[in-house]
Amino acid sequence: MNKKIITISREFGSGGRTIGRMVAERLGIPCYDNEIIDKVALESGFAHDYIAERGEYALYGSWLGNAFSVGGNKGLSNQDVLWVTQRKTIREFAERGPCVIVGRCADYILQDKEILKVFIHADKQTRAERIVRLYGERDASPEKRLKEKDKRRSAYYRFYTDMEWGKAQNYHVSLNSGELGVEKCVDIICSLY
Amino acid sequence: MNKKIITISREFGSGGRTIGRMVAERLGIPCYDNEIIDKVALESGFAHDYIAERGEYALYGSWLGNAFSVGGNKGLSNQDVLWVTQRKTIREFAERGPCVIVGRCADYILQDKEILKVFIHADKQTRAERIVRLYGERDASPEKRLKEKDKRRSAYYRFYTDMEWGKAQNYHVSLNSGELGVEKCVDIICSLY
Repeated sequence: MNKKIITISREFGSGGRTIGRMVAERLGIPCYDNEIIDKVALESGFAHDYIAERGEYALYGSWLGNAFSVGGNKGLSNQDVLWVTQRKTIREFAERGPCVIVGRCADYILQDKEILKVFIHADKQTRAERIVRLYGERDASPEKRLKEKDKRRSAYYRFYTDMEWGKAQNYHVSLNSGELGVEKCVDIICSLY
Repeated sequence: MNKKIITISREFGSGGRTIGRMVAERLGIPCYDNEIIDKVALESGFAHDYIAERGEYALYGSWLGNAFSVGGNKGLSNQDVLWVTQRKTIREFAERGPCVIVGRCADYILQDKEILKVFIHADKQTRAERIVRLYGERDASPEKRLKEKDKRRSAYYRFYTDMEWGKAQNYHVSLNSGELGVEKCVDIICSLY
């Protein structure tokens, strides 16, 4: 297979971003992650943190209410403006040549291109340990944080793509990084490039 | 990872069975597939074809009605007897040592063991071409045959395991054999053993 672009979707805390960086480094191609947020920030005027949060996660209550509302609310919501700008940015990055793109529904946004679609997941315990190690303790338990993030990421994905997040059939390769190890996941993805 | 047993779940027509045989051959371990049906036939008295069909696929109408009925229907249904015998048989095969087991909910039945759980899938067109090549034309279109088989296999899996068939998180590795090719799938699985 001759895929020029690798998209990596991932469960929160599964190490998908790290795997993306490592794959890109080994293949000598760029990995777009924060770069996307930076560019969207520049074009949309939204703050970096706002985009990081709202460009991949559904917000409960206000957001869903807003998103599904018919009438009354004329024009695009902030979330919709963000989606449009993010989509445009991702397609621009993809035009530059071979690369790895982490998250942000890139698999869906680039589905008309030659892409290798990867999904990285891991068991809850591995992910809980990882997020505490990387992001520190919070008031909420790691399990609660994982559950909330997964739920919101999945809702965001479904809303904008009308597809099911984490369904094996939507990806070319799905890997459990907790069980296989990050290095092995990198090996497999690189071997497919 | 030191997994002694590889279970392969697969979409109908995805080549999962062929991949299982090839993996087993390359690793020099047995692949259990028809052997399970033979042994279940011996122990249960059911015919080979009946087991092949009813040991992995839900039957609509009568079966679902039967399976979900409360009261009236005392004792186990044929399908339940088959499930119990099949479960026992799979666990006996697993006790013999390293092996590959194709289908029949082995991933769920052996979840307390050290297993490598693989899911093989492919896009509809690849699978449609494959089933016509392997099993010939039928009155129903290949697309209809695929849809029906997937639906019944999924319903069977959900009923007996209470888990979702084809959800990436339920497997260690999920591969699109149509996109990656059968040989590459075999390479990846063997590299994880």
